[in-house]
Amino acid sequence: MNRTINDFGLVCGILPQGAKNAITDVPGVQVGHCTLRDGDINTGVTAILPHSGNLFRRKVVAASHVINGFGKSTGLVQIDELGTIETPILLTNTLSVGTCATALIREAISQNPDIGRTTSTVNPVVGECNDGPLNDIQALIVSEHHARVALQAAHDGPVEQGSVGAGTGMTCFGFKGGIGSSSRRISLDGSEHHLGVLVLTNFGNAGDLVLPDGRRPSPKTVENLAKAQEKGSIIIVLATDVPLEHRQLTRVAKRAGAGLARLGSFWGHGSGDIAIAFTTGNTIDHDSKADVAEMRVLNEDRIDLLFRAAAEATQEAVLNSMLSADEFVGRGGATRVSLVQVLRRSELKP
Amino acid sequence: MNRTINDFGLVCGILPQGAKNAITDVPGVQVGHCTLRDGDINTGVTAILPHSGNLFRRKVVAASHVINGFGKSTGLVQIDELGTIETPILLTNTLSVGTCATALIREAISQNPDIGRTTSTVNPVVGECNDGPLNDIQALIVSEHHARVALQAAHDGPVEQGSVGAGTGMTCFGFKGGIGSSSRRISLDGSEHHLGVLVLTNFGNAGDLVLPDGRRPSPKTVENLAKAQEKGSIIIVLATDVPLEHRQLTRVAKRAGAGLARLGSFWGHGSGDIAIAFTTGNTIDHDSKADVAEMRVLNEDRIDLLFRAAAEATQEAVLNSMLSADEFVGRGGATRVSLVQVLRRSELKP
Amino acid sequence: MNRTINDFGLVCGILPQGAKNAITDVPGVQVGHCTLRDGDINTGVTAILPHSGNLFRRKVVAASHVINGFGKSTGLVQIDELGTIETPILLTNTLSVGTCATALIREAISQNPDIGRTTSTVNPVVGECNDGPLNDIQALIVSEHHARVALQAAHDGPVEQGSVGAGTGMTCFGFKGGIGSSSRRISLDGSEHHLGVLVLTNFGNAGDLVLPDGRRPSPKTVENLAKAQEKGSIIIVLATDVPLEHRQLTRVAKRAGAGLARLGSFWGHGSGDIAIAFTTGNTIDHDSKADVAEMRVLNEDRIDLLFRAAAEATQEAVLNSMLSADEFVGRGGATRVSLVQVLRRSELKP
Amino acid sequence: MNRTINDFGLVCGILPQGAKNAITDVPGVQVGHCTLRDGDINTGVTAILPHSGNLFRRKVVAASHVINGFGKSTGLVQIDELGTIETPILLTNTLSVGTCATALIREAISQNPDIGRTTSTVNPVVGECNDGPLNDIQALIVSEHHARVALQAAHDGPVEQGSVGAGTGMTCFGFKGGIGSSSRRISLDGSEHHLGVLVLTNFGNAGDLVLPDGRRPSPKTVENLAKAQEKGSIIIVLATDVPLEHRQLTRVAKRAGAGLARLGSFWGHGSGDIAIAFTTGNTIDHDSKADVAEMRVLNEDRIDLLFRAAAEATQEAVLNSMLSADEFVGRGGATRVSLVQVLRRSELKP
Repeated sequence: MNRTINDFGLVCGILPQGAKNAITDVPGVQVGHCTLRDGDINTGVTAILPHSGNLFRRKVVAASHVINGFGKSTGLVQIDELGTIETPILLTNTLSVGTCATALIREAISQNPDIGRTTSTVNPVVGECNDGPLNDIQALIVSEHHARVALQAAHDGPVEQGSVGAGTGMTCFGFKGGIGSSSRRISLDGSEHHLGVLVLTNFGNAGDLVLPDGRRPSPKTVENLAKAQEKGSIIIVLATDVPLEHRQLTRVAKRAGAGLARLGSFWGHGSGDIAIAFTTGNTIDHDSKADVAEMRVLNEDRIDLLFRAAAEATQEAVLNSMLSADEFVGRGGATRVSLVQVLRRSELKP
Repeated sequence: MNRTINDFGLVCGILPQGAKNAITDVPGVQVGHCTLRDGDINTGVTAILPHSGNLFRRKVVAASHVINGFGKSTGLVQIDELGTIETPILLTNTLSVGTCATALIREAISQNPDIGRTTSTVNPVVGECNDGPLNDIQALIVSEHHARVALQAAHDGPVEQGSVGAGTGMTCFGFKGGIGSSSRRISLDGSEHHLGVLVLTNFGNAGDLVLPDGRRPSPKTVENLAKAQEKGSIIIVLATDVPLEHRQLTRVAKRAGAGLARLGSFWGHGSGDIAIAFTTGNTIDHDSKADVAEMRVLNEDRIDLLFRAAAEATQEAVLNSMLSADEFVGRGGATRVSLVQVLRRSELKP
Repeated sequence: MNRTINDFGLVCGILPQGAKNAITDVPGVQVGHCTLRDGDINTGVTAILPHSGNLFRRKVVAASHVINGFGKSTGLVQIDELGTIETPILLTNTLSVGTCATALIREAISQNPDIGRTTSTVNPVVGECNDGPLNDIQALIVSEHHARVALQAAHDGPVEQGSVGAGTGMTCFGFKGGIGSSSRRISLDGSEHHLGVLVLTNFGNAGDLVLPDGRRPSPKTVENLAKAQEKGSIIIVLATDVPLEHRQLTRVAKRAGAGLARLGSFWGHGSGDIAIAFTTGNTIDHDSKADVAEMRVLNEDRIDLLFRAAAEATQEAVLNSMLSADEFVGRGGATRVSLVQVLRRSELKP
Repeated sequence: MNRTINDFGLVCGILPQGAKNAITDVPGVQVGHCTLRDGDINTGVTAILPHSGNLFRRKVVAASHVINGFGKSTGLVQIDELGTIETPILLTNTLSVGTCATALIREAISQNPDIGRTTSTVNPVVGECNDGPLNDIQALIVSEHHARVALQAAHDGPVEQGSVGAGTGMTCFGFKGGIGSSSRRISLDGSEHHLGVLVLTNFGNAGDLVLPDGRRPSPKTVENLAKAQEKGSIIIVLATDVPLEHRQLTRVAKRAGAGLARLGSFWGHGSGDIAIAFTTGNTIDHDSKADVAEMRVLNEDRIDLLFRAAAEATQEAVLNSMLSADEFVGRGGATRVSLVQVLRRSELKP
């Protein structure tokens, strides 16, 4: 069940939310989930499609930023060299990155039989967090089939959030975490644009959370939270339709870290905090025969708008992931309190 | 006049402050200022000495992190390649970096006549912010003499803060900024260590400031603040006596950015936000004849302590820089309100 | 059949080769292959073990360097953040990275049942090249079993080179490529050390190859070579027992690129040229309870020795990979000439 | 006196040279020198102007690449963040960087009185090598006046090479080094383009030099060369009129390192090897009011042409710097043999 900061009178920053307040406010972007819950199994896959066409043929301009690199995401090396993404982005648990990468490869080959034959190979992009505390991660339960289910479930409507897809078994600031999303509207060049964020949240020490109004969990509340150190990771996917070049997008991706810090995080040692950003405002034709292409790039003097949107939407998406998650019982009976419970019981101090 | 968050009942994080609550809590570290105020001239130089010996002969292990690179600091390339600092660090206004670098070179040669003769040259480290709004920066008033005055004034006592040294003409979140410092105590390896921070603050949009308790300036207050966009820069110098290798120190330096974000910054486009870190816990002998040296490095599992200290002390040092600065009249009569005035008149909203 | 530059009177640089002239000259390092040849299937897996103990428990200090990032290797993000490798390194074809990563994870769990339960997850390291021109890469024939076969075959004897393991279907400068190795002896600190290199070679334009004596293939020879652009990739694994910190190792890894350039490469756009380096001279205890550890680091003034060794051994290892490979018939009857044939027929010009 | 590899029957690669075989083959690019020779003083300044207009108002798209960071160049941080150069590039000796930076600032202010007043400050770009062995570098003889002389001497004709400008006191592979230049012609998009290189050469161990035909100095020749380790630095400035974005230009800049390695360098520890690249094919209007700008970018599949040009022209420019320099007597009577002498006496071995 989706709940957002709006339901609790909280506000992250000053820019207006998009209509869906989700990454799918960026035209063409789709999200799908495959959720796996069965006893000690509490995991899944989440798919983000930059557009619904053939991504290998029409790549999106992209960038990544490693906030803290204790993580096992794959595909970042080529994103940074070539500045493009050419597959959907899959999110899953840490030990299933390989399987999801293989699934993306097989999907790309089925759509593009020339891959590895008469054209180059394909760069699968997979992000991960460690859901071991709530999921039997050693079971390696995620299969290529589950990845395909998530891909096929993708749609451009409101994003289902909380304990769903890759977010099923995640923990955030000691509360139940999961999938969250948010967006900001931006007026540029005489028309309306969006920056949208989707996060997989599994980071933050219990007791470090700060709400946008300055309130924090009371010491008594913190006692009941999962005590793990900040070592779970967060993946932040940022999408926009503002035309940017790779360098600009890298700068925007970096600002996701500001959103995390505003929540009380200091990007803990054990946390793989990775931002992946793309724009649908510039696409690259795999088969272009022209020597030179036209690209539209933002006047850099306007980029603060996008920096602000990235920080605000990341901060909010994390909160939305926690607010959309109910109390959860995971592997071996381990439980996670919902932030909603604490907010409703007003167990917060200024 | 030094004022800190303690005087206003504010708290940044959970770690204890050092005795001086300043970068000089790290044994051996010294700070000196040269302040230039005369009509439209409002600028200066601040010197940080990692130790009081010959830095070229006994270098400190160091690292830097570029939070946002719209800046003109010098010396970072070699810090990142070799992992050492071999001169004092000077801070000044943007257009005086060259002069301060030359002053450091001349000082190093006078102490080490073999530089550029029978041994290598020397890498001066200078950080800067643009005090143009309050200082006649085009006058290029800072001379090598002023750099030497700051170096000679260095001592290991409490750090003079506010509108002093390089901080004389700086603006922060629309208020008067300047020099700030803070420290955190860390227990490791059976003894007491410190991480200290000194900042030169000249960043932040008016209206974006968030105090640690969640309060912000009221809209009426913001109206009276300097309206500049976030384009001034901040230099953060982090010092510690915890033994770290370069890679670890880079990770620590990065967390300064979390401290800024907690204050409401999103590391604006026009701001050169640079962190420079060093540890006195490992020094490198320029003249060593041994093939292999011993180095002590922190167990990485303990590094969250330093990350937290870096974020907290940076956040506090910025606030201390503003709290220590009185209302200021600069170039052409431009004025900057002191954050103290606003806090005393309670012009803040939750 | 192993052949080296020694058999052809060629010399790469001035440092002496180790006894095996292979990466296994570094004490403790082991290499194993699993070769898959069956009709259109011409691929495999190669395993490099930094030591024969439990790598997750006793990690080696490591670094990576992306020479050109058109590649899909995995594990680099965490190597760069933490400066360690905690699994064997597997090499394979581009589309089998995910499967090999999963195999490494399963092996690590079987040795360390606390992974993802009471301790962190594990970071598998896999490098790749695209053998599509000679192998039915779309068949995704490599299984976790094949990865295990390579791991179990690992030994510290002479390294089998040429069309073997991951090198089975590779092409280099239009000739048959594959696996190559070489080493250099280094005297430091009163004892003998080594730097060893193992390469998976699949890069270089036909006609660009330059031998160490300045000779190149004649135009007539080039006509008969595979005409692909430089878009195949090379993985360079560098091992040493010289004690280095992560920053130093990064610098050493970078010098692999000099070895490639000396062969005539300009690190082509379509080539994923990745260097992964580790030292057995410093290991990190996963379970250490001490706050501070001792580390031995090379006096930086001696590091040119390692730079030179890295450049020379990389240059030679690539040549050895070609010289050890016989003429090859791959997928659909595509053939690759052996460099040996051309050298024997003296089809080279000064 | 300019001499090139053409005069000695040497060839670097396969692409055609431009008409001037110099960086000034890129339309609009200008070069000027100020040479200082007086007893122990043997130094100077070299200026490269990307175009003859107001660079602060019309910036060129730019990038840098640190091959080895034992160097004190300034301006790189902002080049990498914003992807532009907004002043001429000055080259000088290591200890004169600050003075040259200040000179560039003063020039920029005189052309743009709004700098530091109503618009941002300016980022001076200065590269350096250590000419201490042949020049009394401690004298800090270079003044702002000398920088201005170099700027005013700039023209778009053939580039004066050898012991001139910043190259006056430089040493390369034990021979006399200095300023060198070269260019390559590139056909793209139906018209002719160029990539041009200018180098300041002060790197390379005596005895490591390899000519393009594989010949090296004989042991007897090496005995007479300056014995310094590879610790002098090289600055490589690359210019093109091919339209590129910042990311592409970074990739091109990196290939300068391949040119050095082909000469026998392994990018020695003590050498600050820095590449700075710009394209006149895309300029950025400092005063643009539009939210979005058009940019032309190369089809990445064509970029190997530029990589090859960068490697070839860098390799050749270094050789041209040595070939254009006569035997030289510097500080304290230290002499440097000219490579020309050795080539004429055929003191080379295959």
